[in-house]
Amino acid sequence: MGSPDTAVRRDALRERLCPLDVDVALVTNLVNIRYLTGFTGSNAALVVAADGADVFCTDFRYRTQSAEQIPDLEHVIERNCAAALAGRLAEAGVGRVGYESHEVTVDGLAALTDGLPDAELRSLQRAVEDLRAVKDEAEVDLTREACAIADRALAHLMAAGGIRPGRTERAVGRDLDGRMLDHGAEQPSFETIVASGPNSAVPHHRPTGRALAAGDFVKFDFGAAYGGYHSDMTRTVVLGPAADWQREVYAVVLEAQRLGREALRIGADVRDVDAAARDHIKAAGYGEHFGHGLGHGVGLQVHEAPTVSYLGAGTLADRMLVTVEPGVYLPGRGGVRIEDTLAVRPDGPELLTLTSKDLTVL
Amino acid sequence: MGSPDTAVRRDALRERLCPLDVDVALVTNLVNIRYLTGFTGSNAALVVAADGADVFCTDFRYRTQSAEQIPDLEHVIERNCAAALAGRLAEAGVGRVGYESHEVTVDGLAALTDGLPDAELRSLQRAVEDLRAVKDEAEVDLTREACAIADRALAHLMAAGGIRPGRTERAVGRDLDGRMLDHGAEQPSFETIVASGPNSAVPHHRPTGRALAAGDFVKFDFGAAYGGYHSDMTRTVVLGPAADWQREVYAVVLEAQRLGREALRIGADVRDVDAAARDHIKAAGYGEHFGHGLGHGVGLQVHEAPTVSYLGAGTLADRMLVTVEPGVYLPGRGGVRIEDTLAVRPDGPELLTLTSKDLTVL
Repeated sequence: MGSPDTAVRRDALRERLCPLDVDVALVTNLVNIRYLTGFTGSNAALVVAADGADVFCTDFRYRTQSAEQIPDLEHVIERNCAAALAGRLAEAGVGRVGYESHEVTVDGLAALTDGLPDAELRSLQRAVEDLRAVKDEAEVDLTREACAIADRALAHLMAAGGIRPGRTERAVGRDLDGRMLDHGAEQPSFETIVASGPNSAVPHHRPTGRALAAGDFVKFDFGAAYGGYHSDMTRTVVLGPAADWQREVYAVVLEAQRLGREALRIGADVRDVDAAARDHIKAAGYGEHFGHGLGHGVGLQVHEAPTVSYLGAGTLADRMLVTVEPGVYLPGRGGVRIEDTLAVRPDGPELLTLTSKDLTVL
Repeated sequence: MGSPDTAVRRDALRERLCPLDVDVALVTNLVNIRYLTGFTGSNAALVVAADGADVFCTDFRYRTQSAEQIPDLEHVIERNCAAALAGRLAEAGVGRVGYESHEVTVDGLAALTDGLPDAELRSLQRAVEDLRAVKDEAEVDLTREACAIADRALAHLMAAGGIRPGRTERAVGRDLDGRMLDHGAEQPSFETIVASGPNSAVPHHRPTGRALAAGDFVKFDFGAAYGGYHSDMTRTVVLGPAADWQREVYAVVLEAQRLGREALRIGADVRDVDAAARDHIKAAGYGEHFGHGLGHGVGLQVHEAPTVSYLGAGTLADRMLVTVEPGVYLPGRGGVRIEDTLAVRPDGPELLTLTSKDLTVL
């Protein structure tokens, strides 16, 4: 696998400083700092400067770790990282400081203003999140492995007969989580959803003590974290026998999901991608039962830019990583969602979650 | 167990509105909303009004759940909850609106200001967090159970021979986590720390593939979540034989921890509590190897007010829940931390984590 070149990412942010009319970016969001430096600790701040004088700050607990993870940046060791770097910028007389106005709290901005009394503080307007939306190949590689871990875990769960009547949603979920860890996941990407029978009609159901039963839809929405990157996959199976209404709903969602995947083209408007899947569900008469957007970006966070939804805006670019996850939820009866994680590519999307989407009757 | 009376909590916040010079509190922090209403979903906002006209907002996903969890409040169902309630306040002509300036981002405040063009927006100054620092008996009950789950999990891990040479930190941590879930934990309170040998000298070590070995200190820092409340406990054992230096360091930390616990009195300054433990470690010659504060509040979050540290401020009150967790960390050799969760009480602290603190040599 390729190794992420964080210096290239910092340079990409540096190029955005002039259009944002700032001399430096003071980055305080920890996910953005990880993206720009590789640092994985829980306390840090980072200055990326137009003149190249970048500085990183963390506290004494991470002195050794940060020296290993970021050998190429000047380090400051202080408990209050944002204040420490603000102090450095004030000393250096920096005039225009960009900060993350969507992350910094009102109290946090007041503290920054105190520390930088002579500077103008301006919003970075999610510049780092914008950069993060388009992945480099090292990021795609890590996500591909995260998806493979989830594929293997589900395959082994099925092969071991782990999805069977009488077992509770909670027990099945713990089993699946354990198998992801066995296969190398750092942790589950999020709280694993196992939703059976009527519970499968709840889009974001938490596993309960309900026992799986014959005739249930069983919906799994789960993922693995690997190298900081996340997979996100949903599969819905039937504990046989499958009823006609279940086969019908499944076929509708499966075709909608295929149409959504096929719409993942460079330059496509995210609303058109959403519509490609949604129009099929509407035409089949289930439009009112698909209440959420079609998908979202995936990366260092399991939900990140871009939003692939009728509520979104913008177009797809090469090497964006997104989910396609239409669903139909029939209250009191059950629901189906089918979700893949994919990479946008010039020749059409690269499928990263490889588990079969054919209707599985167990 | 008692049932939390969230109406009493909202009334306590209501009493603070006049001194804060606001007509309403617009609460957007989800933990604070859970405290004030019992709602456990992932999207909400709440108005607590001086005139008693409280309103709750969540989105369509939580319509059923919120009606069950909060039968006594008026509901609004909207996706953007803060904006929806701001709109209601604007319509009603409310003049002075308190908001959580330590939680609301700069962009979030700009959106609120747009929605409330004629109102004055003022900081609530962590009013809800202040209320949360002093628990009611229902909260102490839930925390006592969370502590009991952690006690049982560790006892069973030890009884099963789960802490033995050759097993990796990661395997032991997964075993302990599984046992907490078996005993009724909703989830671990935080990422369980298992730190062996030289790794035990790292205060916040993440479990690795290192195999436990004879002569190691093995440090466990872990907790269980139960009913939304958290336990937090650290124990350090030795895989025999125990060396003299290990016995000495252990005895120093154990006595410091006892002194810290005894200092937990109503009205005690948090800095004096910290000093009670720290002075003993300093006198024993290990002062430079105890680099963190003595403890912290525990509740709906595993770290919350009060800060029990030389960097803290304020005094202890009846029914505060706090940790006492001194440590001595010798780089390259190993470290000891011993931590309990306790309730401040009129007759001295109530110990909630009951696992023995005698030196255990396995």
